[in-house]
Amino acid sequence: MNIKITGSGSYVPTEKVTNLDFARHNFLNEDGTQFPQPNEIIAQKFLEITGIEERRYVTDDLLSSDIAAIAAQRAIDDAKIDPETLDYIILAHNFGDVKKGAIQSDILPSLASRVKHSLKIKNPKCVAYDILFGCPGWVEGVIQAQAFIKAGMAKKCLVIGAETLSRVVDIHDRDSMIYSDGAGATIIEATEEEGGVLAHESATFTYDEAYYLFFGNSYDKQLDPDVRYIKMHGRKIYEFSLSNVPKAMAACLDKSGVPIEKVKKILIHQANEKMDEAIIQRFFRLYKQTPPDGVMPMSIHKLGNSSVATIPTLYDLLVKNKLEKHELNKGDIIMFASVGAGMNINAFVYQM
Amino acid sequence: MNIKITGSGSYVPTEKVTNLDFARHNFLNEDGTQFPQPNEIIAQKFLEITGIEERRYVTDDLLSSDIAAIAAQRAIDDAKIDPETLDYIILAHNFGDVKKGAIQSDILPSLASRVKHSLKIKNPKCVAYDILFGCPGWVEGVIQAQAFIKAGMAKKCLVIGAETLSRVVDIHDRDSMIYSDGAGATIIEATEEEGGVLAHESATFTYDEAYYLFFGNSYDKQLDPDVRYIKMHGRKIYEFSLSNVPKAMAACLDKSGVPIEKVKKILIHQANEKMDEAIIQRFFRLYKQTPPDGVMPMSIHKLGNSSVATIPTLYDLLVKNKLEKHELNKGDIIMFASVGAGMNINAFVYQM
Repeated sequence: MNIKITGSGSYVPTEKVTNLDFARHNFLNEDGTQFPQPNEIIAQKFLEITGIEERRYVTDDLLSSDIAAIAAQRAIDDAKIDPETLDYIILAHNFGDVKKGAIQSDILPSLASRVKHSLKIKNPKCVAYDILFGCPGWVEGVIQAQAFIKAGMAKKCLVIGAETLSRVVDIHDRDSMIYSDGAGATIIEATEEEGGVLAHESATFTYDEAYYLFFGNSYDKQLDPDVRYIKMHGRKIYEFSLSNVPKAMAACLDKSGVPIEKVKKILIHQANEKMDEAIIQRFFRLYKQTPPDGVMPMSIHKLGNSSVATIPTLYDLLVKNKLEKHELNKGDIIMFASVGAGMNINAFVYQM
Repeated sequence: MNIKITGSGSYVPTEKVTNLDFARHNFLNEDGTQFPQPNEIIAQKFLEITGIEERRYVTDDLLSSDIAAIAAQRAIDDAKIDPETLDYIILAHNFGDVKKGAIQSDILPSLASRVKHSLKIKNPKCVAYDILFGCPGWVEGVIQAQAFIKAGMAKKCLVIGAETLSRVVDIHDRDSMIYSDGAGATIIEATEEEGGVLAHESATFTYDEAYYLFFGNSYDKQLDPDVRYIKMHGRKIYEFSLSNVPKAMAACLDKSGVPIEKVKKILIHQANEKMDEAIIQRFFRLYKQTPPDGVMPMSIHKLGNSSVATIPTLYDLLVKNKLEKHELNKGDIIMFASVGAGMNINAFVYQM
């Protein structure tokens, strides 16, 4: 028995937000002092480092669970399955449903329950739950689906990543330019077909790293200290990722028995283009190689970092031939890898 | 190979809140009109139906993840394991960390990451994540731990339920008297010993039921509509539970092959004493029996409904002989059963 992705779907929000749209923001340093450079310079430097030109925000009427349901329906249609046959709905997010203009995360009921309700699935044996695991949440959801299938507890799982980071950004923090909204979904099934998930790796680093990404106050010290936003120690995350992600990826690849030469594409979490390039460089260096051209499809330029939604969306765009100069064929080996809040790192090797 | 609970721990918060402590509250109907009866009458009727005399609140300085870490440390000590050997930390909650006086749920990083940090565990292979599954979250965490062990992905898991419902109650809603705070934790291990988890059952009902428990506005219509609280349609939950929980428990028991006569104790989620009694009556009636005296240990009178913390706390009190007139012996069969937001129902049959 193998475990394969038999369908995918995504929702790319409709509101394009360019770097110039941040020109009116009053960016501050962490200590609340004015940032010395004009916003145009900040935007230029930001673009050079992260590669992000645009990001997408949902319209004011939509919540994370709404776009999760849209992506889920598309994945179900793509896999051509009867949704009543699903054994699990696993939904990864990190902030729940946050209404436009409100500051509370609404996670009661779970977003997975909301999606199941929206999909009008009646079968109570379809168990719906949410997982909180930072940006690597969707990858971890796949790993959990795999566990349920291997343990004989499931045959068919819907794994979704959905996030509306636009609702939790501090507009006085330059890092707010990184974050975006989105949803991606996949159907994971037990199958007799060849390929599928060949190996996985998962890790949580908390001794020093637990609060590298955290919920913190605005850089505008005048604002209510009881209102918090997504915050990160970017430099620490960068160094942590470069030290640990390539090693985790290599451990995963070695476990799969697949030689590095066979890796056709690496779908890595899109947080920062320079960081991703450095990770891939180091990963190949572990095998005394350099990354082949086109091994790392990027969506960050136009879509920003939509957390848990990034990788399933990237996968969906890739398999639907919506990424220029990238294509996949049956039998191709790809790797998924992610890093984010927790700090969590995970990866899996997959044969199409 | 069997899967057993090898240690448990709990944290019962120190602040006792009696029904009389609610006397100063201004209880309103759902439509905002004044509740006609004096608070003493409300408190008396409340006690008669729910059985709750007291509940426990954490002190102002504590968060859900803090009490989760205390319970977790106690479970680790009880199981006499090296925490560095844990493969998973699974933490069930429904509102994250909510600071006293604040209204935001802080779930970045996950509470499981916070607990791992507090426990000073270094091993990155100990994967920490949160699960949102309503009140049945801890039971579902055990079912997931079981899946990881069966799939060969884990040998030792820490499963925690922690909640501070006192931070999300609407003081104008009589239902606020139900909720309490607490944390319970268990170590789940693969073992060659006899017994352990014999069968489980899990279900999610969302077609009509998704919003029976929800995040809604205060009954005081003057308050900010963007501030929301834990809310429930009590009557609907009562009817739903009576219709579905006994059947799910029977399906679970039948799957285990254990005859009803062998069930020594039923550890059911403590939400409402009258409801729990009716569920147990119906469960035994499915086998043309009546519940034997003492089959259902209750903690609700003094501890209220602490959501995900209730069952692991009840288990911990039971195995530590802290519940009067209740004891367990090696080989005894017990059942765990829960119902809550989602709406989710689950159960497992367990041999000591």
